[in-house]
Amino acid sequence: MPLPPIEYADASAPVRAVYDDIKKSRNVPDVNHFWKYLAHDPATLKRTWESIKQIMAPGALDPLTKEMIYLAVSVSNGCAYCIASHTAAARKAGMTDAQFAEVMAVTGMANETNRLANGYRVPIDKAFE
Amino acid sequence: MPLPPIEYADASAPVRAVYDDIKKSRNVPDVNHFWKYLAHDPATLKRTWESIKQIMAPGALDPLTKEMIYLAVSVSNGCAYCIASHTAAARKAGMTDAQFAEVMAVTGMANETNRLANGYRVPIDKAFE
Amino acid sequence: MPLPPIEYADASAPVRAVYDDIKKSRNVPDVNHFWKYLAHDPATLKRTWESIKQIMAPGALDPLTKEMIYLAVSVSNGCAYCIASHTAAARKAGMTDAQFAEVMAVTGMANETNRLANGYRVPIDKAFE
Amino acid sequence: MPLPPIEYADASAPVRAVYDDIKKSRNVPDVNHFWKYLAHDPATLKRTWESIKQIMAPGALDPLTKEMIYLAVSVSNGCAYCIASHTAAARKAGMTDAQFAEVMAVTGMANETNRLANGYRVPIDKAFE
Amino acid sequence: MPLPPIEYADASAPVRAVYDDIKKSRNVPDVNHFWKYLAHDPATLKRTWESIKQIMAPGALDPLTKEMIYLAVSVSNGCAYCIASHTAAARKAGMTDAQFAEVMAVTGMANETNRLANGYRVPIDKAFE
Amino acid sequence: MPLPPIEYADASAPVRAVYDDIKKSRNVPDVNHFWKYLAHDPATLKRTWESIKQIMAPGALDPLTKEMIYLAVSVSNGCAYCIASHTAAARKAGMTDAQFAEVMAVTGMANETNRLANGYRVPIDKAFE
Repeated sequence: MPLPPIEYADASAPVRAVYDDIKKSRNVPDVNHFWKYLAHDPATLKRTWESIKQIMAPGALDPLTKEMIYLAVSVSNGCAYCIASHTAAARKAGMTDAQFAEVMAVTGMANETNRLANGYRVPIDKAFE
Repeated sequence: MPLPPIEYADASAPVRAVYDDIKKSRNVPDVNHFWKYLAHDPATLKRTWESIKQIMAPGALDPLTKEMIYLAVSVSNGCAYCIASHTAAARKAGMTDAQFAEVMAVTGMANETNRLANGYRVPIDKAFE
Repeated sequence: MPLPPIEYADASAPVRAVYDDIKKSRNVPDVNHFWKYLAHDPATLKRTWESIKQIMAPGALDPLTKEMIYLAVSVSNGCAYCIASHTAAARKAGMTDAQFAEVMAVTGMANETNRLANGYRVPIDKAFE
Repeated sequence: MPLPPIEYADASAPVRAVYDDIKKSRNVPDVNHFWKYLAHDPATLKRTWESIKQIMAPGALDPLTKEMIYLAVSVSNGCAYCIASHTAAARKAGMTDAQFAEVMAVTGMANETNRLANGYRVPIDKAFE
Repeated sequence: MPLPPIEYADASAPVRAVYDDIKKSRNVPDVNHFWKYLAHDPATLKRTWESIKQIMAPGALDPLTKEMIYLAVSVSNGCAYCIASHTAAARKAGMTDAQFAEVMAVTGMANETNRLANGYRVPIDKAFE
Repeated sequence: MPLPPIEYADASAPVRAVYDDIKKSRNVPDVNHFWKYLAHDPATLKRTWESIKQIMAPGALDPLTKEMIYLAVSVSNGCAYCIASHTAAARKAGMTDAQFAEVMAVTGMANETNRLANGYRVPIDKAFE
């Protein structure tokens, strides 16, 4: 059976420190399941959170664009948990129904043409090399 | 051996019509290899071009955002041709080096956490169901 | 609807022979669902069991290492059944919580850097060719 | 660097036996690269050849249909070697240009709708459960 | 939470037009969940249905062969919804238990040898280039 | 065209600091292409190196086992660069030809049974839930 989630009350000090930072950074009362399961490995919990905090921060791309890319990849990989959580995150960052529909349409088409290019064994154009 | 590309001079009328529309829509002197290989199946050529023209048009998302999502999916799937051609397309739509770097960082992290969620068998949070 | 599992009592002689060998080899009272569904194709059941028995036997790698590799691949592919069954198999072969955590961390990171290498179109180093 | 291919002249007796059976079964003067690389592991060489010989034999499906399914999966996974070799095998089994085009079209569309179903989180219909 | 399905009674005229065409073409009393979720994006609904109608029509390949290829790709990608719906579609097109078993066996073996070819870094044979 | 590699002589101070740490940690005269391309994004370069240094260090699993898992995942994903570089890394950590062969055999079989489990829609056994 899977390892159980680790709730705040049962967490070690290093795990609580990460939970506290997630809650403060995202202004939420509790952390998602993802973090409560990852907490079985405090080093990976801390590293993953710090990586995500760095990567998803506003930069050359705004947070909504980043969340939509995260969602597109999760959809392409078929990760049910990640599709659910990153759809929610993208919604929170402002994704509208129309934008969601376009993310799906682009993701679907990219998956189709990726295979057409594979199957027809299309060589890379000189201009793209 | 793979089928050869079909050049404009050797193309049937229906294939030429698609090539002409691509060249006009994108304001380019010639079409990419992708279309010249797909031309072996004129129905798929026409359908794919019309689908892409519809999907990639400005809508709730701007063309640059769409090209970056297309690139992220192609990178995730490891389609070498598509990575090359959609990096070029995103550049043409205005993607900067800094934006490219952030697309890669988000795509990489999404692929990592997709697997952490799979491996820890994280159940979907009530709030996301 | 899916085909139902085939229980021992309802199985043909060739299927029973495979079930018996699995039970004896693994010292278990019954076979897992995987085999009971595969039993709809006795040739594939027999071939798959014999392949797995050969591949997973102690050799240059010990059974625990093999089970952890099997788990890493299943996590990477997102096969829920296989993640559940091979986590159990690896546990039975001695995988500790700390080892599980490290398999997950390596699997996650490999999935991330696989995509960074794709996206940056990194050419293979001369030394690795 | 990769292991080199093992040519017939340099092969051990068990490897030669597999090569001989492949050449006889397929009526070809030499085996493909795939087998010459796999020959570094004679047990896997023998097991893989025997599995393929069993699976690809005429049965409820004819050999051409089987080769087209093999090709569709290889295209979906983006395995360049397998796409090349199984396109050749399907051609040898009788695949026409028109059939190739339809295999590609179906493979592309399946990859697209697989992601649309993932992204819209479509629950399985009662009738399919 | 996911978007809800859109039933006929609540659908807009363009969505109803697609539903009507699906029901008539397939001679079914109602459309599957897939279409009721995709209906949130009427343009994608219409485009996807028209593409599928074109691609899956009898041509150089018969409908059963096409459905088996669709199923093989969906199994390879691990799309639970698509596996369920295209198993049903293939059954409706005449797929027997024996044919289903052979589709699975070929799909499984292709996935195995795709990775053996990757791992042994097998170069494409001259004859296939 | 792809971004060019960044050599030590042309690198900024933060990039040189990472290169120096890689060279010292691995006792090598120069860093691989992977790092020289990632250097276009110094933040991702530093984060990725520090993550890998942490994850691949000896722990509950020895470095060779970790490299073999990394290789198995890269083979499963079909990342040519990563297969080449992690085969080399595993060899350096002591992987023998016989161990390589077993990693490949397990990876191949896992990919096969992952799809058989998907296709037969095998429900998770109570004991594994």
